[in-house]
Amino acid sequence: MELFSQTHAGQYKRKYGNRGRILLKCPDQPGIVAAVSQFLFSHGANIIESSQYSSDPSGGTFFLRIEFDCPDFAGRLAEMRTEFESAAAPFKMEWKITSVTELKKTAIFVSKEPHCLLELLWAWQSGDIVADLAIVISNHENCRKIVESLGIPFYHIPASKENRQEAEEKQQQLLLQYEIELIILARYMQILTKKFTAAHPNRIINIHHSFLPAFVGARPYERAYERGVKLIGATSHYVTDELDEGPIIEQDIERVTHHDHVDDLKRIGRSIERSVLSRAVKWHLEDRILTDGNKTVVFS
Amino acid sequence: MELFSQTHAGQYKRKYGNRGRILLKCPDQPGIVAAVSQFLFSHGANIIESSQYSSDPSGGTFFLRIEFDCPDFAGRLAEMRTEFESAAAPFKMEWKITSVTELKKTAIFVSKEPHCLLELLWAWQSGDIVADLAIVISNHENCRKIVESLGIPFYHIPASKENRQEAEEKQQQLLLQYEIELIILARYMQILTKKFTAAHPNRIINIHHSFLPAFVGARPYERAYERGVKLIGATSHYVTDELDEGPIIEQDIERVTHHDHVDDLKRIGRSIERSVLSRAVKWHLEDRILTDGNKTVVFS
Amino acid sequence: MELFSQTHAGQYKRKYGNRGRILLKCPDQPGIVAAVSQFLFSHGANIIESSQYSSDPSGGTFFLRIEFDCPDFAGRLAEMRTEFESAAAPFKMEWKITSVTELKKTAIFVSKEPHCLLELLWAWQSGDIVADLAIVISNHENCRKIVESLGIPFYHIPASKENRQEAEEKQQQLLLQYEIELIILARYMQILTKKFTAAHPNRIINIHHSFLPAFVGARPYERAYERGVKLIGATSHYVTDELDEGPIIEQDIERVTHHDHVDDLKRIGRSIERSVLSRAVKWHLEDRILTDGNKTVVFS
Amino acid sequence: MELFSQTHAGQYKRKYGNRGRILLKCPDQPGIVAAVSQFLFSHGANIIESSQYSSDPSGGTFFLRIEFDCPDFAGRLAEMRTEFESAAAPFKMEWKITSVTELKKTAIFVSKEPHCLLELLWAWQSGDIVADLAIVISNHENCRKIVESLGIPFYHIPASKENRQEAEEKQQQLLLQYEIELIILARYMQILTKKFTAAHPNRIINIHHSFLPAFVGARPYERAYERGVKLIGATSHYVTDELDEGPIIEQDIERVTHHDHVDDLKRIGRSIERSVLSRAVKWHLEDRILTDGNKTVVFS
Repeated sequence: MELFSQTHAGQYKRKYGNRGRILLKCPDQPGIVAAVSQFLFSHGANIIESSQYSSDPSGGTFFLRIEFDCPDFAGRLAEMRTEFESAAAPFKMEWKITSVTELKKTAIFVSKEPHCLLELLWAWQSGDIVADLAIVISNHENCRKIVESLGIPFYHIPASKENRQEAEEKQQQLLLQYEIELIILARYMQILTKKFTAAHPNRIINIHHSFLPAFVGARPYERAYERGVKLIGATSHYVTDELDEGPIIEQDIERVTHHDHVDDLKRIGRSIERSVLSRAVKWHLEDRILTDGNKTVVFS
Repeated sequence: MELFSQTHAGQYKRKYGNRGRILLKCPDQPGIVAAVSQFLFSHGANIIESSQYSSDPSGGTFFLRIEFDCPDFAGRLAEMRTEFESAAAPFKMEWKITSVTELKKTAIFVSKEPHCLLELLWAWQSGDIVADLAIVISNHENCRKIVESLGIPFYHIPASKENRQEAEEKQQQLLLQYEIELIILARYMQILTKKFTAAHPNRIINIHHSFLPAFVGARPYERAYERGVKLIGATSHYVTDELDEGPIIEQDIERVTHHDHVDDLKRIGRSIERSVLSRAVKWHLEDRILTDGNKTVVFS
Repeated sequence: MELFSQTHAGQYKRKYGNRGRILLKCPDQPGIVAAVSQFLFSHGANIIESSQYSSDPSGGTFFLRIEFDCPDFAGRLAEMRTEFESAAAPFKMEWKITSVTELKKTAIFVSKEPHCLLELLWAWQSGDIVADLAIVISNHENCRKIVESLGIPFYHIPASKENRQEAEEKQQQLLLQYEIELIILARYMQILTKKFTAAHPNRIINIHHSFLPAFVGARPYERAYERGVKLIGATSHYVTDELDEGPIIEQDIERVTHHDHVDDLKRIGRSIERSVLSRAVKWHLEDRILTDGNKTVVFS
Repeated sequence: MELFSQTHAGQYKRKYGNRGRILLKCPDQPGIVAAVSQFLFSHGANIIESSQYSSDPSGGTFFLRIEFDCPDFAGRLAEMRTEFESAAAPFKMEWKITSVTELKKTAIFVSKEPHCLLELLWAWQSGDIVADLAIVISNHENCRKIVESLGIPFYHIPASKENRQEAEEKQQQLLLQYEIELIILARYMQILTKKFTAAHPNRIINIHHSFLPAFVGARPYERAYERGVKLIGATSHYVTDELDEGPIIEQDIERVTHHDHVDDLKRIGRSIERSVLSRAVKWHLEDRILTDGNKTVVFS
């Protein structure tokens, strides 16, 4: 099979060469949209998509995401960033302006179960997910062949409770070397240290195999079976230093019945995990997620 | 049971006294959002919610819905409308500015099956749907008691193929008398004339008991059963002069199996019809629906 | 509106006069189905629907539900029960044979929020739920009118932490007087004593407003909002002496977004609660639920 | 990646060596279940799972599927088949007794879009689908590499309107050579002749990219976009000589909005097609599907 990803990447860059995004959050007050849209208009930009949210119109936080087409965007980007600083300051905005064609450098961490990795690889090859998929890191060897067959470097770093610190140092080195901006834990079954998670705030996306906050921690399918639930789920979230307590990005469920034993729950669950993680990753890559304390604002 | 609707209506008016909405569509071009948001800012208005859509950024139609809070909105509304005319003209906007507390005068048409009517009444009583529910018109008597017990006038107008024109004249007279702005066909089983539908463009919402375009016309559950489908659905749409061909607002489905005979499909279907029609009506009342040819843009 | 329930009840009894059900559980072993189906055949009965489940074919528990039509069933029922005792003994079956037309005497407990009560009343009136709806008991007065208008006795028994025992004694007296077989807690917001729950094992159905085991206990919507979940749910379960820990019968969820504040979650949740409780009650009334330890086997 | 399928196949055969299935349909009458269960009991078999359905208890067709464990099943199978003939004759049963470990010889037909093929390969490798995946036939070359890397023969047979008969003759020859029992059209975009479909009744499973009967025929996503539907779907069905009119096995849908253009519908649709086809194939392979005229009885 030809590498769809390469064809897609080329088409994508040609199609979206002038496409940019503004993301911001700031204290809510009148005039924000007027200021930002006036700024864009002054550059001849056309707003393609705009989403906003206020946690509380009288004194909360305002969130904005705008996608726009701007003539000669690549040439103009640096200047726009400088200029936007002045517009942003009086509103105390946290903001960024990005180019849609600057693909995010991404690493996938995986352990033995390959279903989430395979789904991401497939979505990437078919152009559903647009990223610079730089490396895959695993504490097992079994996925090497499929990863390398797609031209992606595969690193085997043994990891367990015993060598956690050493393993993370090797991982960290690779992340620096490849300038990784997003880490996807695609069923990576090792717990990360606080040092590691603190180094990548809102840049590590995990898939947990339950509808959180039910079944935090280990063996969620076994515990779901024990409890006799009629729905099982999966949750994708940013990783923080509290296990399974980070901001939730996406969740989904499937029905199960008394006929479904633990193995069935795992089989059904794999399908949920695949789609939930894919959606969360896609939204992150498209700059659709802003964090609001321990919650997410998802402009999907 | 006390009439929740009255309590809710009072609370609602106090809470949203300064809340307004702008809805517009016009040819897409840069500067629209800047102009509208500058207009709102000049009146001290704070944007609460904003949604936009462009059918095609290079030359399509642009759709915008903004909900805002504006100090002394009631006093200022007439002036704002006059002033917005100047902002709107160069963009060739079709637009309206509405006050959230001017409830839409609404009529429900119903035949013998009461489930959709009862759902709407319940949603209205509990404050989920906010409307000035002015009249219920039926070609049967069986729902009179429940309607009148809520203080809503009930009109029995016999209607059938034979007296269609005469019945519609009586209906039309009531619609004028009560200044009705929205007609809900809550399983009203009579076909309307072209004259009637043409008099209320995008103001008649119907619930059809299939996932259109499957099973247009009569007896959809029977035909779904014959075809052996594994999903049944319902569709809410604006009524045009082509039967079941108007712009679709909302659809939903439920799973069925070989065990479900026609009566089961009808029972399951009633539940879908109730929720689909409710959502469509809620969105219309909140000015969340704009039409784009024979399609809808729903800012839900 | 005429009382559909009365029409439906009459039709139902005429249609299903010869319809019976066998429910049983016993240690799994070969020959159970052969023995039961031979028993039914010897009475000229035709099996209409049959469902079975084994928790573990090598030494687990076997569950069976059969619905059958038997000529002169009413006349034959007592004899069948006596005779089945001999078939059941060697298999150590727990079993019952019921007549579909012996409607279960049912009580609904409700507090102030009427949405679940109204849904049950509607389902009962329209024939979707077939029960002998004997009484409604509430610690508030606000639902009296709608209940009494349907000809159902309504009892107001004030209940709070302070008078729990006294209130339960009054409730218990009514349950005895009306020979109640099923108690539905339709958003009844008082905690029941162990004495009360122990007196009605697998005969009290509750609706909890979260997807258990997430958000056990009070204020689940508030806590769901705080956690930032993307799905909210409801769970119907049999009540045991451990709060929200009884066997789960049915669960469902709806999607929510960052736009949905606590009030929105409650509004969306009401719709889930209504359908989840209705389904659980329907299945119980149709003898479709068997318990397996703290889980349910639902032959839906 | 190691070939999971091989490990799984071995485990599967060891685990289910004594597992068999009876499938039958016949005119409904009392005594069928008694006869079949007595037959199984006389062989010492334990019923693991049993599902039945009657299209109409008074004179319709009765459908039964039983999964059982029988000591020394392989040795006993031929004898059981002979003996069952006598039990079946008085009831005019169409029936078969199968061994769970006789995997069905399966061919996949695919055109250019690989997503359904890849999903099936993945499900097969991971043991979710248990089949003897004998060959893949395509009118394109692009999937050869992935198929052959799994050790499955890949045949490229150019096919178009012009050479339909010639192509089908080559396909037919391969199907005979490999003794194929199931043909899966995994987005195979050629129309089959009546001769071909008639040769494989209820043995060709297709995935159509709409919720049938909406959008029969070509370009369903384009037509769904034009109609402005709010749900798109996919349908898996047995192929008959009427295009898209065969018995429906499974359907599913996803929500779409006005934001989704044709390309988005196709992307979202791919995900639905994958899961719908997988489920249909899994059920067929597990002998869970019986046909009832132009409908299916699915004992899932």
